[in-house]
Amino acid sequence: MSSTPALHEEIGAYFDRLWPLLRSITGDGVRKTHDVLSEIIPLERIEIPTGTEVFDWEVPKEWVVRDAYLIDPNGKRILDVWENNLHLVNYSVPYNGELTLSELDEHLYSVPNLREAIPYVSSYYTPRWGFCLSQQQRDSLPDGRYQVVVDTEHVDGSMTLGELVLPGQEQTEVLISTYTCHPSMANNELSGPLVAAFLYRKLAELEHRRLTYRFVFLPETIGSLAYLAIRGDHLKEQMMAGYVVTCVGDDGPFTYKRSRLGTSLGDRAAEHVLDGDGGSVHVESSVLDFFPNAGSDERQYCSPGFNLPVGSLMRTMYAKYPEYHTSLDNREFISFPAMCESVEIYFKILISLEMNRKYQNLYPYGEPQLGKRNLYSNLGIKNVDQERSAILWLLNLSDGVHDLLSISSQSGIEISVIHAAAQRCVEAKLLEAIQ
Amino acid sequence: MSSTPALHEEIGAYFDRLWPLLRSITGDGVRKTHDVLSEIIPLERIEIPTGTEVFDWEVPKEWVVRDAYLIDPNGKRILDVWENNLHLVNYSVPYNGELTLSELDEHLYSVPNLREAIPYVSSYYTPRWGFCLSQQQRDSLPDGRYQVVVDTEHVDGSMTLGELVLPGQEQTEVLISTYTCHPSMANNELSGPLVAAFLYRKLAELEHRRLTYRFVFLPETIGSLAYLAIRGDHLKEQMMAGYVVTCVGDDGPFTYKRSRLGTSLGDRAAEHVLDGDGGSVHVESSVLDFFPNAGSDERQYCSPGFNLPVGSLMRTMYAKYPEYHTSLDNREFISFPAMCESVEIYFKILISLEMNRKYQNLYPYGEPQLGKRNLYSNLGIKNVDQERSAILWLLNLSDGVHDLLSISSQSGIEISVIHAAAQRCVEAKLLEAIQ
Amino acid sequence: MSSTPALHEEIGAYFDRLWPLLRSITGDGVRKTHDVLSEIIPLERIEIPTGTEVFDWEVPKEWVVRDAYLIDPNGKRILDVWENNLHLVNYSVPYNGELTLSELDEHLYSVPNLREAIPYVSSYYTPRWGFCLSQQQRDSLPDGRYQVVVDTEHVDGSMTLGELVLPGQEQTEVLISTYTCHPSMANNELSGPLVAAFLYRKLAELEHRRLTYRFVFLPETIGSLAYLAIRGDHLKEQMMAGYVVTCVGDDGPFTYKRSRLGTSLGDRAAEHVLDGDGGSVHVESSVLDFFPNAGSDERQYCSPGFNLPVGSLMRTMYAKYPEYHTSLDNREFISFPAMCESVEIYFKILISLEMNRKYQNLYPYGEPQLGKRNLYSNLGIKNVDQERSAILWLLNLSDGVHDLLSISSQSGIEISVIHAAAQRCVEAKLLEAIQ
Repeated sequence: MSSTPALHEEIGAYFDRLWPLLRSITGDGVRKTHDVLSEIIPLERIEIPTGTEVFDWEVPKEWVVRDAYLIDPNGKRILDVWENNLHLVNYSVPYNGELTLSELDEHLYSVPNLREAIPYVSSYYTPRWGFCLSQQQRDSLPDGRYQVVVDTEHVDGSMTLGELVLPGQEQTEVLISTYTCHPSMANNELSGPLVAAFLYRKLAELEHRRLTYRFVFLPETIGSLAYLAIRGDHLKEQMMAGYVVTCVGDDGPFTYKRSRLGTSLGDRAAEHVLDGDGGSVHVESSVLDFFPNAGSDERQYCSPGFNLPVGSLMRTMYAKYPEYHTSLDNREFISFPAMCESVEIYFKILISLEMNRKYQNLYPYGEPQLGKRNLYSNLGIKNVDQERSAILWLLNLSDGVHDLLSISSQSGIEISVIHAAAQRCVEAKLLEAIQ
Repeated sequence: MSSTPALHEEIGAYFDRLWPLLRSITGDGVRKTHDVLSEIIPLERIEIPTGTEVFDWEVPKEWVVRDAYLIDPNGKRILDVWENNLHLVNYSVPYNGELTLSELDEHLYSVPNLREAIPYVSSYYTPRWGFCLSQQQRDSLPDGRYQVVVDTEHVDGSMTLGELVLPGQEQTEVLISTYTCHPSMANNELSGPLVAAFLYRKLAELEHRRLTYRFVFLPETIGSLAYLAIRGDHLKEQMMAGYVVTCVGDDGPFTYKRSRLGTSLGDRAAEHVLDGDGGSVHVESSVLDFFPNAGSDERQYCSPGFNLPVGSLMRTMYAKYPEYHTSLDNREFISFPAMCESVEIYFKILISLEMNRKYQNLYPYGEPQLGKRNLYSNLGIKNVDQERSAILWLLNLSDGVHDLLSISSQSGIEISVIHAAAQRCVEAKLLEAIQ
Repeated sequence: MSSTPALHEEIGAYFDRLWPLLRSITGDGVRKTHDVLSEIIPLERIEIPTGTEVFDWEVPKEWVVRDAYLIDPNGKRILDVWENNLHLVNYSVPYNGELTLSELDEHLYSVPNLREAIPYVSSYYTPRWGFCLSQQQRDSLPDGRYQVVVDTEHVDGSMTLGELVLPGQEQTEVLISTYTCHPSMANNELSGPLVAAFLYRKLAELEHRRLTYRFVFLPETIGSLAYLAIRGDHLKEQMMAGYVVTCVGDDGPFTYKRSRLGTSLGDRAAEHVLDGDGGSVHVESSVLDFFPNAGSDERQYCSPGFNLPVGSLMRTMYAKYPEYHTSLDNREFISFPAMCESVEIYFKILISLEMNRKYQNLYPYGEPQLGKRNLYSNLGIKNVDQERSAILWLLNLSDGVHDLLSISSQSGIEISVIHAAAQRCVEAKLLEAIQ
């Protein structure tokens, strides 16, 4: 990873430009976010009109924010959305008026046990307005009358999705899905689109790609639902594996949440890499069975009607760190070198899918003679080298049942070594790729 | 369990009336036992005539005991059956005569390593007479001649079974089987019929029952064989789960012996409850795979020709406590509050079967919008409440494969919460019960 | 094992005669080895002509060794093949000439980190000559010119296989395969043919054998390939279980390498015996899943085209002891009493296969009445004897699915007790053998 020093700085620079944008599920903040991401990768935009029905849902109006703040009894302007865009409850309806502190109080949100944190609160489907602030600040609000300005509007428009297909030699697809609807928070969510974008760039640099990669940048929930509405049938047919990229910015151990299927190819590849890729050095990580009661867009992809093979590789998972969904999930909480490592691990998983095939042994009766094909040292001595081991494993297990992931796991030999040995066997006409 | 103080006293009072009755596999002792039990529940009697063939067996004659005792060389009356009904080998043939101590000796039974215990010995299928006594008493018997009186008779009559069906909305049945053939012993056996009877009463008090419950009170082995002879085909068709209730009177940890099937619905429900019902607080217990070489009537229900889903929930299992099958398995050995707890755990298991269903998600493509159905707080904040969790689990897993027991186990949410959430989803037309 | 003292001496005497023979994959050393083994068992010889094609291979020429040694610069004769037949690289091509030490050096083989060991080196499929010596000796070779004499020849002839079929009442076969191609080494390989031969003798002494046993003594790899070429189809049809006997001479714990199938009858029987045969006393041992990248002829038997149920029971496995494939794998390394024990464990495994059957319960509805068939003590007392237990397990599990190995494992009762009980049940017409 010699490029890492430069890369983590590049990621950091994009992070700083994306950070202040006021994102929501719709609106200009999202579009500006996509503008920045489009400098990294050639993202294509899909606009879904307000009011479009997607399954049980409807695409909401665009949210326009012109201004939002309070004037306190001392005439001081506080909780200004342009100072910290978490101050305004996301998707707030407009309001203009004067309220006493106690009237105002039911529109205020804070976190009692994390006194310095401004919480992230949204209200997409019930009309509401409100302000978020630290418990410290809330406790110090003076009695009296407050001038409330929520100069917002909900207008007909469209919801913005970003899509990008990186074609490979085969039409079978791997989905990488991430979201772009949270305002200024770092691990959840900016780490997601940044890692996804740089992962794309790394894949695009490959000279040869067997698989096709589909990257999507969506507003969470309603965005993946809308995407499923237009691409669900295609995905059902073509998708081999998929991952929701989120919470990949901190330097904690990795967490893999399995797809609902539990043993899909995508699950196997992710766990294989985390498990040390046939070797004994595991990536520090834990693996969770699928759960639908919390999480991100895997909940939609893995709904029983689709049941797509979509898992999620994270580092410290949402709701597992106290800073989650607050102003403390910020630049200090994350690490750009850690994001580079997240890119690398995702890349390694995808490469293991690239390499994974099934082969048929064309000499299944006994071992073929490797020596005469220069695949075996002809001198019988003690040490068996790893390539010879890989070839013998391949020949024995290439029976139409086992793929290279399975052979790598069973043999304890890295999949890249197994893959290289398979190539030599194909050249020697001992094996034939069957899938 | 606010009724427990009263309940355990009530159980104790019935226990004291059942204790002195001289039970055997046939005869008046059994009928008197059924008389007492019929004060608790409306037991219906089935009389199977002596000589009736049941599979490989034949219903034995009734045993009549008029008197049984010895006169020792000093003229003292000892081992009187009316003093302790364990003194007489159960089902003894008549005998009247005078024997030397050494002649008498081969008709005496004691337990050398439990010197104060009178063992329980029966001889149903080989004609024999004998007396049981403590090793202490045996060691002190004076030499000399003994007058033996075994004034018994085996007469044509019938074998008494008790049956009681508590109907529910569905014809699918749960079997509760217990036995009534052991003389004065407490854990094995009086705890069994008492817990079964009070469990019936608790079920009968339910306003609504989905399932039908079949309670049977039988002599062990020959009784369940006879019952299978007349009801086996019906049970094969209708039975969803069943339990043999025995050894449920002491305050030791629970023991669940699985049915021969091993993963039947009855096994799953019992283990689910013992495992803490989706929560982390397990009931102190152990689970055993089915074994046919010891046990009770599950051996008949689970014979390979029937292979019914019958397990057995016990506390300290037969043969696992030294007092088993002796006079020391008495009122001191058991605890009436523990019996109330046994009723409660059985009841909880049956309720979990009542609640267990499969549902079909009617909105399987993505998550349906819960907010507009008032099933979801519309304010996006951190905490996910348990009902929302339960609904999301239900929607995701209601695919025709998973039942509520499975969803409760996977989600770690109590089945009653899952069940209540399912009801709300059915009302909201999100789910439909399919089984 | 009262015969053990005599037996281990007998094995030792044969060992001493087999030790000095210069074995290779072909040639007179192999034939002389078969001559000696034929004194123990009536081995039949199969000669496969040089040049015969077997799958991807060809039967090699016979190797004739007349002389092989060096004359060092001091005129001393060293590395004489007749002093230690490991000194000559096995299957060396002829050579006669004078070389400097540095020219000679590339034809010398030693083990740097095992300074006193002469390594075993062979070169069957690439024409090569060479000498093997201890690192100590190599380091002390004086500079100067060496006279090299490798008076060998490769001639048309045949490759020698030994085969021996011990018929049983049924045609179903158990294969015992071992190899006879290594020169003077003790654990790998002489322990193999010796244990196999004495195992045969023990089986031949049985009055009654249900199964047919096929013993083969082959050169490794090319021998089993040739054997599969002529008997593979027969084995596919008839073989129930098979074992490669190798490395069974030391007194270390047992190692069982599973067949590729993993749960074949042969695997189950071996693991059952090592696991203590239903009891709690395990044979000190470890079990390995099949691996194709190292090992012996199981690699050919378990190639995917055959996939025969062949495992391998060893003690300290090849490559797991430093003396492996060197002159230190000698008489001191092994133990003749340990070889006797290896015979016993193999015998126990084969006997468990002999006893293993499936039975059908002819009274599957409830338990049949054992008392009237004298299969049950008619006196109901506490202790259940083991035979009664065995009968009840048999009756419950004789449903066409479970065999005696399975019933022994589930019940924790030795298979011999289960088997004896099954015989009694067959006599009592309760069970019928079905397989």
